[in-house]
Amino acid sequence: MRTRSQLLFACLLFSAMAWSQASAVKKSYSYINPLIGTQRMGHTYPGATVPFGSVQLSPDTDTIPYELNKKYNGKVYEYCAGYQYEDRTIAGFSHTHFSGTGHSDLGDLLIMPTTGALQLNPGTASNPKTGYRSAYSHANETARANYYKVKLDDHNITAELTTSQRVGFHQYTFPKANDAHIILDLIAGIYNHNEKNVWTFVRVENDTLITGYRQTQGWARTRTVYFAIAFSKPFRQYGARKYDEGNIYKGFWRKFDETKNFPEAAGKNIRMHFDFETAENEQVKIKVAISPVSTIGALENMKKEIPHWDFYKTMHEGELLWEKELNKINIETIHEEDKVNFYTAMYHAFINPTIYMDGDGSYKGLDQNIHKADGFTNYTTFSLWDTYRALHPLFNIIQPQRNTDMIKSMLAHYDQSVHKALPVWSHYANENWCMIGYHSVSLIADAIAKGNTGFDMEKALGACISSSNLRYYDGIEYYLQYGYVPEDKNGSSVSKTLEYAYDDWCIAQIAKKLNKPDVYDTYMRRSQNYRNVFNKSTGFMRPRLTDGSFKKEFDPLDTHGQGFIEGNAWNYSLSIQHDPEALVALNGGKEKFTQHLDSLFAMQLPDKYFEKTEDITRDGIIGNYVHGNEPSHHVAYLYNWTGYPWKAQSRVRMILDAMYHPAPDGLGGNDDTGQMSAWYIFSSLGFYPVTPGSDQYALGSPKVKKAVLHFENGRSLVITAKNQSDKNVYVSKVELNGKMLDRPFITHEELMGGGELIYYMTAKPKK
Amino acid sequence: MRTRSQLLFACLLFSAMAWSQASAVKKSYSYINPLIGTQRMGHTYPGATVPFGSVQLSPDTDTIPYELNKKYNGKVYEYCAGYQYEDRTIAGFSHTHFSGTGHSDLGDLLIMPTTGALQLNPGTASNPKTGYRSAYSHANETARANYYKVKLDDHNITAELTTSQRVGFHQYTFPKANDAHIILDLIAGIYNHNEKNVWTFVRVENDTLITGYRQTQGWARTRTVYFAIAFSKPFRQYGARKYDEGNIYKGFWRKFDETKNFPEAAGKNIRMHFDFETAENEQVKIKVAISPVSTIGALENMKKEIPHWDFYKTMHEGELLWEKELNKINIETIHEEDKVNFYTAMYHAFINPTIYMDGDGSYKGLDQNIHKADGFTNYTTFSLWDTYRALHPLFNIIQPQRNTDMIKSMLAHYDQSVHKALPVWSHYANENWCMIGYHSVSLIADAIAKGNTGFDMEKALGACISSSNLRYYDGIEYYLQYGYVPEDKNGSSVSKTLEYAYDDWCIAQIAKKLNKPDVYDTYMRRSQNYRNVFNKSTGFMRPRLTDGSFKKEFDPLDTHGQGFIEGNAWNYSLSIQHDPEALVALNGGKEKFTQHLDSLFAMQLPDKYFEKTEDITRDGIIGNYVHGNEPSHHVAYLYNWTGYPWKAQSRVRMILDAMYHPAPDGLGGNDDTGQMSAWYIFSSLGFYPVTPGSDQYALGSPKVKKAVLHFENGRSLVITAKNQSDKNVYVSKVELNGKMLDRPFITHEELMGGGELIYYMTAKPKK
Repeated sequence: MRTRSQLLFACLLFSAMAWSQASAVKKSYSYINPLIGTQRMGHTYPGATVPFGSVQLSPDTDTIPYELNKKYNGKVYEYCAGYQYEDRTIAGFSHTHFSGTGHSDLGDLLIMPTTGALQLNPGTASNPKTGYRSAYSHANETARANYYKVKLDDHNITAELTTSQRVGFHQYTFPKANDAHIILDLIAGIYNHNEKNVWTFVRVENDTLITGYRQTQGWARTRTVYFAIAFSKPFRQYGARKYDEGNIYKGFWRKFDETKNFPEAAGKNIRMHFDFETAENEQVKIKVAISPVSTIGALENMKKEIPHWDFYKTMHEGELLWEKELNKINIETIHEEDKVNFYTAMYHAFINPTIYMDGDGSYKGLDQNIHKADGFTNYTTFSLWDTYRALHPLFNIIQPQRNTDMIKSMLAHYDQSVHKALPVWSHYANENWCMIGYHSVSLIADAIAKGNTGFDMEKALGACISSSNLRYYDGIEYYLQYGYVPEDKNGSSVSKTLEYAYDDWCIAQIAKKLNKPDVYDTYMRRSQNYRNVFNKSTGFMRPRLTDGSFKKEFDPLDTHGQGFIEGNAWNYSLSIQHDPEALVALNGGKEKFTQHLDSLFAMQLPDKYFEKTEDITRDGIIGNYVHGNEPSHHVAYLYNWTGYPWKAQSRVRMILDAMYHPAPDGLGGNDDTGQMSAWYIFSSLGFYPVTPGSDQYALGSPKVKKAVLHFENGRSLVITAKNQSDKNVYVSKVELNGKMLDRPFITHEELMGGGELIYYMTAKPKK
Repeated sequence: MRTRSQLLFACLLFSAMAWSQASAVKKSYSYINPLIGTQRMGHTYPGATVPFGSVQLSPDTDTIPYELNKKYNGKVYEYCAGYQYEDRTIAGFSHTHFSGTGHSDLGDLLIMPTTGALQLNPGTASNPKTGYRSAYSHANETARANYYKVKLDDHNITAELTTSQRVGFHQYTFPKANDAHIILDLIAGIYNHNEKNVWTFVRVENDTLITGYRQTQGWARTRTVYFAIAFSKPFRQYGARKYDEGNIYKGFWRKFDETKNFPEAAGKNIRMHFDFETAENEQVKIKVAISPVSTIGALENMKKEIPHWDFYKTMHEGELLWEKELNKINIETIHEEDKVNFYTAMYHAFINPTIYMDGDGSYKGLDQNIHKADGFTNYTTFSLWDTYRALHPLFNIIQPQRNTDMIKSMLAHYDQSVHKALPVWSHYANENWCMIGYHSVSLIADAIAKGNTGFDMEKALGACISSSNLRYYDGIEYYLQYGYVPEDKNGSSVSKTLEYAYDDWCIAQIAKKLNKPDVYDTYMRRSQNYRNVFNKSTGFMRPRLTDGSFKKEFDPLDTHGQGFIEGNAWNYSLSIQHDPEALVALNGGKEKFTQHLDSLFAMQLPDKYFEKTEDITRDGIIGNYVHGNEPSHHVAYLYNWTGYPWKAQSRVRMILDAMYHPAPDGLGGNDDTGQMSAWYIFSSLGFYPVTPGSDQYALGSPKVKKAVLHFENGRSLVITAKNQSDKNVYVSKVELNGKMLDRPFITHEELMGGGELIYYMTAKPKK
């Protein structure tokens, strides 16, 4: 038994982390395990960030230039977030990372502390000693909310990382060393390659401060990150090396030795080093502030957010921010580890979109001009093909204010878009055009359906209409002409037709709310276009050609060349999210369709059907149902429309268990900026938004024993699962505020009214 | 005899130009001939600009990448201003040009109207038909103040150009054509090469407006020009071609055909075309606004400056601006053509430095952040090694307000400089470090000596001290250690030592005015350092080595490898501008030094001594005296210190006649942003600032018959040369306001007091 003074000693020794664990009530944030999803294809990162933080400070174990993907056997895709759990070396710590995305970019401003002879190249995973990278061990690694710690074995340095909104805070504990270095690698980047860097500009303002920017082309075609970096200890010397001498006009800079203690560097590819002498256990701390607009902005961000050198103070402030966000839902669970899954899912759901503006609201727009966010917080990183499904619907329940600001950010994007289009997949003042659809309209429709209308709805409708008529975008001119995208004109034609039809339904819903019957009629007609690609004879959606005929060769199991993208006909044919009843009817009615769904889950899909597909791996598949990628996310709930809700219940619980567990390989596919996690949260709570843009949720089977949702409207909803257990996966009845729900659905208004939602759990299906 | 109605008809027919010529009083601006200096090495351009205008819209006949200079037999240097009079083709019209510089950059946003099959590459001078360029003839070319006109023979298009401060205005008269094009070449640039472009970003906002920016590395290492381009007629289609496909990550932009009617383009090297159908004599007008900070800034500049499509209105406004500036000095001359020389010299003197900020005062600083000019107009393009000598002293007389703003711009540069240094040679938010010395201090000292003190003098002194102690700059650490720059440590060591010593004297003068005796003493000591490189045995300044010995091999006629830059020992040894008396003494007294000067002018310099030197050509040489380059500009006036002022008088008149004439080859060397022209103006008026930083001017021999100088202080000075003629080049006496000047000098105070300065001219020297 410990005495009180021993406890106090422990507190001091282990700081906030230990304190939190030692305290009586376990904080929600302490359940966060950022390592979940860092193995295989989760594409999450283990480093430090605050909720929706502009800085994501995280270790990069490797990066592979996108162009070299084939050479590396497709491994580039593993490094979307810079870190792979199975790697044995760390190259350094960079400041920007996507969480869970299906393509990548970022990895800006890689910093690495080293000792020994100066090495300016990163070395390779197979020959780590040839560069500055270091071996590390998971035994010496800690990843928590807003905190990451690792021992860098090759350099005998302990690295600790934390962040504020726009500042990365590094704390490096060095051994005694005459030759301690901090490397700033301005070439490093995720998916980086020789030509990705466009320009780099650095100034050594004094012996503890540097400023500059790096401009890249890549997924974001024209992206610039401005920075200011402060050191807690003056460097005794420094240097810069350019890796593009051959290309650069040196002019009269030849007067100088720009490699040593010269305070200005500019060029395409630059690495820098800052040299120190350190005593045993001496700490060198570094603050790296970023800005989307200027180095002055970065400096201001640093001054405002971290005007001190107290690493743990910043760490603790970030923990409190997470605690505040996580406390929007308090849960009780069957197993303690379910809380790890749940709160980590919330953590991953609350990382993207990230805030993209300086403290004063300045940000760079799509037009590359500097704008000021007027009356809203500007966000970036919209992975909308993924997140319209569950992440933004989740925000409409527990983050409505942020979701409204996200929509305002999308409308600002529209204002700045030369195409007069809402975002498709946007990040850092760029549209990257990834994936398909114009799903911004779903976010707008869903927010309106749920009463989160703090934006200019008339303008939003105009933006939706404009986006849906961008003729040169992805076959829209043909979609408008033929009522479907002909496969011979534009590939992935069925996926596009289905998603455009759903999006059109969303626009119709907005028009209805705004009392525009003409617009409503137009878009309701367009929303029926899914019918144009339904092939009655096979029962699948199937690509059609310009002449109206269906494509002859057709394999409904294959994901390639069949008119779909990231999904086969079996899965994608179920994408009539706006009209599941019609879907059931098209498929021969409830019984036949139920059997169809059963087959989906039960059949064995040979490896050959997904081995070429990055986004669909064995990890994420149950039968032929693909949970590891988004198009199927609503599928298990479709049983609610066939009269077999108990099948939905068991499938959902099965998926929750099979696809999520509290370990680095705990995600069955890309988290996709929180969409996979949002599915987990919804399904764990017992309902899911099958049709974003409507006010309805399909009921499933909760995994929690109890959850209390604290809404921004001041009300709370208590969800209780009576007789909850691993075996009691079926729901015998559901009561809302004492009244039985006689339907497998619940409305948004019912949820937000608060009170008590009780699920009665049982081991046997209520057929 | 013409009738009144005939005259009216002529007015209408020939527009403003004809009107101006037909009117009774000939305007000063009508004497401007922008073609002077466009042949050989004058490096001026013939295009349109307003005084100190941000836009210099001018034809480019060719450009040669700097790296290919050898391949082209050193011809790159001819194209510093983009135009060579002897060339037979024009590639297009670009918007930024230096006037007369000795190295180059700019040439942004080249526009070319064409007809016929679309050609997107410029073609070559030897095979012009392979590209969009066109033959032209000087017979069809007109160059006037703020107006340039040329017939493009290959396309049968008449091009007219004019400008406002930040907007270039094009007026193209097309033939009837189904295939009329406007080419926007975003690769073209002066000294451009494949790697000079860093990034280009363009948006087609609608069918009459495009915006964007181009970012280059080159003489300015990190330079971006933002633009907005408006067309008077909607283009019916357009396209973009990228010339760096191999390097560019295309990502999901592959969805689009970016080459045709796609409104967004980004990449390193891009050319665009805008296609029209034109009727016979149909005019298509284009306004190109530029900004140093943003496309929004460019658009605002366009709206403010030219909110209409009246080409001649803008042209006339610019003429009036020139008239206002030129009317600061009214002259009467022996020959009418002297007025062409004189007013064109004023024109060339009033082009650079250029205003570098948006209408609202925003500009990009050295730190690449956006700053706002607070209480001053920000200028850029400081060719200080050249212009400290006469151009800025001229400004201190007739442009004191602008000169004060220029100094404020230099102090802003200092604030933004990571080196804490004043400009050496700066342009467009960049220090390019061209040539030697820290001559900003001369500008500051000269302004203070002349009472133009509307800037923070204490701060200025601090900036001067800081600049003069920048140890890693051009041998200063050795200069501080040894009292001279040792040739074995740092080349061109004598030129540097001499100029540092002069600059140090300037700093001492500032310190004296600000009552800082310690600083004064320190810098007066430093100002004596020229003595450390004087070699008594040869009578020349001569490089010394670290061990104190003089360099053994030494050819005082050679400009290469002898410790000098752009000058030989004969010329450069005379560079003790701050102490001509000591110079005379060092050289053995008045008689001996007079003979030395006589030899300089009289000797024959073999070609081999300058054939490798770009800045010194036969055009600019009289004996061994090099007027075509700056170090000798004060030399003719040194006779005033030897008791032979009459020799100064005849030499000056001889130089005025030999080195300047009103024709394209009328300048004996680079105009160097107006320094050559300022020499002409001063010398024509009868005096010259041998020692900038002092309040004295050496008297020479005026070339004008009469000149009235209108000062900003409200006073006027009337300079009269009695008995002026081509033969009467000697001055028998000089009277200021009725009192004879008994010395060959006049003070700034005496000049600025106004009144009458009378030179009595005679054909015989007054010995």
